[in-house]
Amino acid sequence: MDTSIEQLRKGTIKLHSLESEMAASDAVRTRRRFIEEETGAPLEYTGRYTIPEEYTVKHNIENMIGCIQIPVGVAGPLAVKGEYARGAFYIPLATTEGALAASVNRGCSAVSKAGGAEARVFSDGMSRAPVFAADSISHAADAASWIENNLPLLKEAAEATTSHGKLKSVSVYTAGCSVYVRMVFDTGLSMGMNMATIAAEAAAHVISENTGLRLVAASGNLCCDKKPAAVNLIEGRGKTVSAGVFLTDEILKSVLKTDAESLFEVHVRKNLEGSARAGAFGFNAHAANILAAVFIATGQDPAHVVEGSSCMTTMERRNGGLYAAVTLPSLQIGVLGGGTALPCQRECIALLGCADGNENNAKKFAEITASAVLAGEISLLAALAAGKLGSSHKKLARG
Amino acid sequence: MDTSIEQLRKGTIKLHSLESEMAASDAVRTRRRFIEEETGAPLEYTGRYTIPEEYTVKHNIENMIGCIQIPVGVAGPLAVKGEYARGAFYIPLATTEGALAASVNRGCSAVSKAGGAEARVFSDGMSRAPVFAADSISHAADAASWIENNLPLLKEAAEATTSHGKLKSVSVYTAGCSVYVRMVFDTGLSMGMNMATIAAEAAAHVISENTGLRLVAASGNLCCDKKPAAVNLIEGRGKTVSAGVFLTDEILKSVLKTDAESLFEVHVRKNLEGSARAGAFGFNAHAANILAAVFIATGQDPAHVVEGSSCMTTMERRNGGLYAAVTLPSLQIGVLGGGTALPCQRECIALLGCADGNENNAKKFAEITASAVLAGEISLLAALAAGKLGSSHKKLARG
Amino acid sequence: MDTSIEQLRKGTIKLHSLESEMAASDAVRTRRRFIEEETGAPLEYTGRYTIPEEYTVKHNIENMIGCIQIPVGVAGPLAVKGEYARGAFYIPLATTEGALAASVNRGCSAVSKAGGAEARVFSDGMSRAPVFAADSISHAADAASWIENNLPLLKEAAEATTSHGKLKSVSVYTAGCSVYVRMVFDTGLSMGMNMATIAAEAAAHVISENTGLRLVAASGNLCCDKKPAAVNLIEGRGKTVSAGVFLTDEILKSVLKTDAESLFEVHVRKNLEGSARAGAFGFNAHAANILAAVFIATGQDPAHVVEGSSCMTTMERRNGGLYAAVTLPSLQIGVLGGGTALPCQRECIALLGCADGNENNAKKFAEITASAVLAGEISLLAALAAGKLGSSHKKLARG
Amino acid sequence: MDTSIEQLRKGTIKLHSLESEMAASDAVRTRRRFIEEETGAPLEYTGRYTIPEEYTVKHNIENMIGCIQIPVGVAGPLAVKGEYARGAFYIPLATTEGALAASVNRGCSAVSKAGGAEARVFSDGMSRAPVFAADSISHAADAASWIENNLPLLKEAAEATTSHGKLKSVSVYTAGCSVYVRMVFDTGLSMGMNMATIAAEAAAHVISENTGLRLVAASGNLCCDKKPAAVNLIEGRGKTVSAGVFLTDEILKSVLKTDAESLFEVHVRKNLEGSARAGAFGFNAHAANILAAVFIATGQDPAHVVEGSSCMTTMERRNGGLYAAVTLPSLQIGVLGGGTALPCQRECIALLGCADGNENNAKKFAEITASAVLAGEISLLAALAAGKLGSSHKKLARG
Repeated sequence: MDTSIEQLRKGTIKLHSLESEMAASDAVRTRRRFIEEETGAPLEYTGRYTIPEEYTVKHNIENMIGCIQIPVGVAGPLAVKGEYARGAFYIPLATTEGALAASVNRGCSAVSKAGGAEARVFSDGMSRAPVFAADSISHAADAASWIENNLPLLKEAAEATTSHGKLKSVSVYTAGCSVYVRMVFDTGLSMGMNMATIAAEAAAHVISENTGLRLVAASGNLCCDKKPAAVNLIEGRGKTVSAGVFLTDEILKSVLKTDAESLFEVHVRKNLEGSARAGAFGFNAHAANILAAVFIATGQDPAHVVEGSSCMTTMERRNGGLYAAVTLPSLQIGVLGGGTALPCQRECIALLGCADGNENNAKKFAEITASAVLAGEISLLAALAAGKLGSSHKKLARG
Repeated sequence: MDTSIEQLRKGTIKLHSLESEMAASDAVRTRRRFIEEETGAPLEYTGRYTIPEEYTVKHNIENMIGCIQIPVGVAGPLAVKGEYARGAFYIPLATTEGALAASVNRGCSAVSKAGGAEARVFSDGMSRAPVFAADSISHAADAASWIENNLPLLKEAAEATTSHGKLKSVSVYTAGCSVYVRMVFDTGLSMGMNMATIAAEAAAHVISENTGLRLVAASGNLCCDKKPAAVNLIEGRGKTVSAGVFLTDEILKSVLKTDAESLFEVHVRKNLEGSARAGAFGFNAHAANILAAVFIATGQDPAHVVEGSSCMTTMERRNGGLYAAVTLPSLQIGVLGGGTALPCQRECIALLGCADGNENNAKKFAEITASAVLAGEISLLAALAAGKLGSSHKKLARG
Repeated sequence: MDTSIEQLRKGTIKLHSLESEMAASDAVRTRRRFIEEETGAPLEYTGRYTIPEEYTVKHNIENMIGCIQIPVGVAGPLAVKGEYARGAFYIPLATTEGALAASVNRGCSAVSKAGGAEARVFSDGMSRAPVFAADSISHAADAASWIENNLPLLKEAAEATTSHGKLKSVSVYTAGCSVYVRMVFDTGLSMGMNMATIAAEAAAHVISENTGLRLVAASGNLCCDKKPAAVNLIEGRGKTVSAGVFLTDEILKSVLKTDAESLFEVHVRKNLEGSARAGAFGFNAHAANILAAVFIATGQDPAHVVEGSSCMTTMERRNGGLYAAVTLPSLQIGVLGGGTALPCQRECIALLGCADGNENNAKKFAEITASAVLAGEISLLAALAAGKLGSSHKKLARG
Repeated sequence: MDTSIEQLRKGTIKLHSLESEMAASDAVRTRRRFIEEETGAPLEYTGRYTIPEEYTVKHNIENMIGCIQIPVGVAGPLAVKGEYARGAFYIPLATTEGALAASVNRGCSAVSKAGGAEARVFSDGMSRAPVFAADSISHAADAASWIENNLPLLKEAAEATTSHGKLKSVSVYTAGCSVYVRMVFDTGLSMGMNMATIAAEAAAHVISENTGLRLVAASGNLCCDKKPAAVNLIEGRGKTVSAGVFLTDEILKSVLKTDAESLFEVHVRKNLEGSARAGAFGFNAHAANILAAVFIATGQDPAHVVEGSSCMTTMERRNGGLYAAVTLPSLQIGVLGGGTALPCQRECIALLGCADGNENNAKKFAEITASAVLAGEISLLAALAAGKLGSSHKKLARG
């Protein structure tokens, strides 16, 4: 190892080439030692991991030096009455923010006591939108027309690149001579962004050949990946999913220490009026917190929390209580590929009963996730209504 | 343990009460076993962690069952010429998305070869905005007036709750009779949201007593925490930070395999026109990816990737090359508190030279992070310009 | 008249009942006199109008007291090479803002000298979106499903209310238990909002009867009428239309007193980066000015300037000059109905050659309007590039 | 005249040069005749106007050919309890959209019967934001710092250009090397955009000289003029004004034919949830309609309806009724300059008691306008709640 470190220092070996010189475990260790020496920072805990490096360095990371350990807790059981998810679930939450798991857990009690969260997937499709350059406005118009009239050609080209992806729909947007073709794919059990990228590129070449449009980039931000964007809020990206529950006055009082009027007022003034006044695309209390914790626990792409945060929480006062719901227009998740194959993450997916290969597991997972967000929303909003946000942070996070 | 599991099953012990019955390590193990039995999912890898449970269960998580291991790689060295960060840094990236670390690494080469990223913090302040109810429009107007004329009173109340937080400014927004008071705090080395919450609540009580406004919730979404919101984009939240670099034609060609014209075209059509057409609040390629990876590695709150994703990437063609920059209006990070105290995360902060207690370490960290985002942007946009997005995913992520 | 005024004063006649008591011309005069007496403000000029009151008070206004005279000027000739508009046009601009007509006029010179604006209508459809209440998430999901599977029923109901409107497409959006059904209509020569409202209501009753959804309001703001809204920016409302032109270096210099580099820089830093930084849904210089002036001259609904202002101006540097274009995703105009029937307004529509009943006149009008916006954008941006905004205001508006 | 027309045809006289060759009235007539001949469209009604051309062609329009007559009606009396506006007002509404004046009129009855609208101006300031280019991120940071530390210098330069404008505040925003300096001015009785432009340009030169920033354009879209933009929604532009009223159950029933529960439900599902789901910056029913009608009647710049449309309507159920309010963050109006000097428009300003030169007239006008918007919102929302939107259009607009 000392030799390799010496070579790294001299630059005769590149940091990212270690895996081609030695076993993955050695490469990771050598690289970590080198970084320790270069920076003077000990990486003792970072070096204590148990996942198999051979797989990981090929599929999940480059220049690996070790692992970060993120504590994971559970909230639940959470009763869910979905189309795909039916039963009670323990939600794995990987987070370092004290009070979050406890808060979601309280929400789970309330939801479960109320009979469970009803959950439904309203639409499902991963999008990718290459951008092209047209010569002129008429060229853009002609090309848009061609695309809309030749979907079967695009479908054929796109689907030839994948064993299970399906091109569901195509929308064309223009900005002057920039032409964006947003293609939406059914990606089965995967979150599917890579699949969508590869398939969209294939279709893009067909478009280019037939219309004379020049392909500028495989992604033109109409997709719109990992940016807060109205296009996802409105058209959806990944799963569009809702979960709702009727909370009786009794549950509001006994579990959530509040009442329908107070909770509703917080909801309106904060989630609706406050977000509106802030120019927000998210009308919720803290959906991103729950999503981040579930995503990290289950190997999702955590940057997709961006789109997930455009959650809309809604509440209605009804006789005897209040109906609360969350709607996530743009939830990008999967149970196959990416980080879902790593061992801890796989275990947490299994914990949700979504690792058995059933073809509806991604939708099941979406229903459970939306229900968990619902639990989290209810709990935090109730805490706010009861005037306890600061104090719960004081108690739980600063112990 | 079997007894405890039996009790959990019967409900005579609550899942979250285990820590009060036994040592933290036992509580975590018992809870994990119970969950394994309830769900049938083995949690073998999740149970293999090395971080100290006593601290963790008090500060970072409730209902802990183990840890998730996230592989961490490095990109760099990245030369940074900041006001606080000066030198070359290795960026720790915790991610499960193959190709990300390699891509950022390439960007680091380009930036470093160009002499390093110039980085500056433009403003710094964590906000919290309680919402109040006024009786009428005139009541709201009178109260807004009182608040604007009595900042010293609010400052005194707020700062009495914290040893190092300072109230920097206060803005009042109204929506009908809902009154939002956005208070911005200097929070030193911490990201500071909890501190801001507690301090803002204290000030809120002073407002309430003096104006007759009724406090509805300690957070009214004008803060605006973890939702995509224009208020953060415009006013900033946490650090507002930029990093930029001039890339010569030679570097564009040799390191990035593209040229100024192609790169600029991708930037305009994707980052500017595409995001505009998508109704986006983020004008970048994938800032969220880099932020998520840095945040997880260094114990930041990963849900803050939401605000971070409102990054603006800018490019200018200049003689002999191109000036590229990123501007993050709303980067919420810290080197103290929350997840930063956990051992792996602490090591990664130390790796960046931000763990030595220097009072400017949070700003230093912000400059490094922005520079890393710059590297990531340059690399992905260059890959798009060279037509390689799909193929790099094919090669790196699908092995 | 004195008697009537006395009765108005006593309240024995209502202000809005005068038309049922006397001829329209008398009613208007009586009402004006009454208002003059009540307020002490002479309404001399307001009383000097020549349009026929009988028609006007029935179709365009209630409680009429007279007319406002808005000066109208022309810009042009403006050469247009559209699919429907072909030739040179004089653009009528009704405005009280000095410098506007002169500025657009200069833009028309530049565009015409460059061979004219190429213009195309990319899509066409007026939307209306009633909002319904569902009982639960599953009810909302079932109803959404029913709607998507029963478009012919909706089409039949909607089209039974109109002689020429056609239901083109239907999209369902939900927010918790609120269900929005956005219906898009081809409305021929009319702007068509009233037609769309009436047709959508008919379809809404069919939805209600078949799904059990409760109709809450005929418009649920997903339409989205006269509010700045991403849904219109992205999906379009009314006409989506673009116009573009290649400006040679010579034209930039001789007509516009600038050069491609300067103009492009102003465009990027103002229209793209500036609007992005402002959290804007409009990426243009002053499209709303031209739209307001054309709308008022031609009897359009001036509140539709709101949607029109989401214009995207784009520029590309090309060899020998610069290609400039505007894209209006949401231009709501017509040549039939509303204010277009009033005599002055009708004359201005005729002036554009859009009053002869040709079935494509609304699209022709859209192409001309987009071309006029293009002329206005080019001229103001060139003035900014030449550093003349303040001075042109000084010279022209303050004489 | 025939000679001039011949010269116009030959191009030996320019269309815009007629005023320098003959009296304004002759110039307008000659130009109109020429346009009639060129286009074949008779401009008979357009030629029938009574306003003085000499003034108009110098201050309000170029290339004048006549006037558009817009019918104006009144709604009211509307009781207002503002800080500046106190009493009952008749609101002049210039519109061609049948049903609008009647609808606002009904709202005025409800508001007045409830004791009047309470109205307040929360802030007041017209903004203009030049954009500059910096050489680098550090240059941008240094310049931002200089600006924030040298406000007196900017104030001096800006105020030297105007007799009554005052520089109130300055905010600096950056996007990479683009630096935007948003300056906010007190502009007294005027809407003040021209004044702000000229003053901001003077300050911009001071900035340029002292910081080395290069001035790119006098307006950089952070102003943000006539585009839907969050910066105006959040920071305000022009007047930020609210109006509110408590409607008793009795008034809701007798005047508005609805009840608190129904009205509130329409409000939440449409104005709040619907607008949120649409990605809107306006949370109201049709504020733009009332604004457009008032603006045209009183000589405001009608393109400012864009910013005005970002109105937030709010409702709260309270014992015995409902409190309704509107908040207009960005209302740009004035009673001096621009179209306000034209005779009909001046009369309509006088009708509102805002033409007597009192220094608070612009604020008084803002309070009245907000109250009128409130009346309009209440009336339309009540009509929707009562299920009458389509039918009222049928009855009133289609006669």
